[in-house]
Amino acid sequence: MTVSPATGPLLYEGKAKRVYATDQHDLVAVEYKDDATAFNALKKAQLLGKGALNCRISALLFEHLERLGVPTHYQGLQGDHWMMVRPVRVVPVEVVVRNVAAGSLCRQMPIPAGTPLDPPLLDLYYKDDALGDPLLSEARLDRLRLLTPDQLEAVRELAFRVNDTLRDLFARVELELVDFKIELGFTADGQLVVADEISPDTCRLWNRAVSDAQERILDKDRFRQDLGGVVEAYGEVLKRVQGVCPEPRVYG
Amino acid sequence: MTVSPATGPLLYEGKAKRVYATDQHDLVAVEYKDDATAFNALKKAQLLGKGALNCRISALLFEHLERLGVPTHYQGLQGDHWMMVRPVRVVPVEVVVRNVAAGSLCRQMPIPAGTPLDPPLLDLYYKDDALGDPLLSEARLDRLRLLTPDQLEAVRELAFRVNDTLRDLFARVELELVDFKIELGFTADGQLVVADEISPDTCRLWNRAVSDAQERILDKDRFRQDLGGVVEAYGEVLKRVQGVCPEPRVYG
Repeated sequence: MTVSPATGPLLYEGKAKRVYATDQHDLVAVEYKDDATAFNALKKAQLLGKGALNCRISALLFEHLERLGVPTHYQGLQGDHWMMVRPVRVVPVEVVVRNVAAGSLCRQMPIPAGTPLDPPLLDLYYKDDALGDPLLSEARLDRLRLLTPDQLEAVRELAFRVNDTLRDLFARVELELVDFKIELGFTADGQLVVADEISPDTCRLWNRAVSDAQERILDKDRFRQDLGGVVEAYGEVLKRVQGVCPEPRVYG
Repeated sequence: MTVSPATGPLLYEGKAKRVYATDQHDLVAVEYKDDATAFNALKKAQLLGKGALNCRISALLFEHLERLGVPTHYQGLQGDHWMMVRPVRVVPVEVVVRNVAAGSLCRQMPIPAGTPLDPPLLDLYYKDDALGDPLLSEARLDRLRLLTPDQLEAVRELAFRVNDTLRDLFARVELELVDFKIELGFTADGQLVVADEISPDTCRLWNRAVSDAQERILDKDRFRQDLGGVVEAYGEVLKRVQGVCPEPRVYG
């Protein structure tokens, strides 16, 4: 069996990725772009090499989750910035798990940045760029009828399993998983899986060996805050993670 | 016993009211001002007569709630823009009940204005002007430790009782209670009561006999949207409500 990426039409183009159909109905090809965006795409740049770094980091993390029994859409790499995945019906809720207060939480709540959150805080947002991805209360989520109560419980449980699994992995390479967002989706057979990507674009990661609040940042906050060294930081994350993970598999 | 308002020092000045101590420890005097503010006080005006209208409307509504067994801080009127109330420890959560979609809900959720919400939607916001009174999820509310689970349940129950009671009253005078915000507080003996005010500043009220989306507005949205006739609209609400309620009592 040979499957080349992008044998079918473009299905979707997001801020950092393109998704193409393939000649298999149960497989799509995801291209990781070098585009960086922040603040709901008000800030944009091209960062050469970011796509390949995020593709490889995501592959390593998806495979790690799979090994520990957490289901994902991931099927394998194809070249340096393509990933083959199962198509999913995306849950229209952005799922954020926070272990340490940072980012928008500190602008919205009286919680200083850097405050440990124990237990971790789960924030759910309605995925809608035009509305600015607003925070969902349980009552609003219920009103939108986006998830059944059982599905919501499954989302919560999966989000915390991802957090436990990744936090442990990152801790082994002296990275603190401050928070992350994931997208979840249902496969054709109804399984809830982790989809999209898991990378320094979607995780806040702090270098545990560094105490300076800016220097320790190894994630997209370097881009948001104009700190420079974005690609170098992502490269450092890749170097550390691949030091403790097997080489990611090539699809097919 | 004679109690004159403002026999003690100013305890608090808000956007539309001043609260003074009295010579009784279990009583404070609330002065309703003519100041109108909107959009977190970015928009301001003086509306002659608004204070007295809101004071009298609030008195009628508090007394109506009390008659139907819903506890409030209200003790009685004193002059035309003063109200005597029990002091409370204010719950730092703004409680909003929505029967029809309007206002910020429609800017944050994919719900068109005018959509009936059945069951009514309860939104809780963290009271903090500097943070912009952000929406609270249950997880964030829990994290802030503002209310115990029992207190939260009591807040919910009280909010829906207020909604049921006021919606029925307003329906009798052909006003639709679209939504409202209330503040709740604990009295010295630990009772949860409705506090602050209940007026066209804090309720959206639509004239049921009018279908035009702007003309029907009889609340602060006339001020927010520069529709004019704010005081006249508040006067119309008072006229209707006092047509079905007893004369409010004078304190003392």
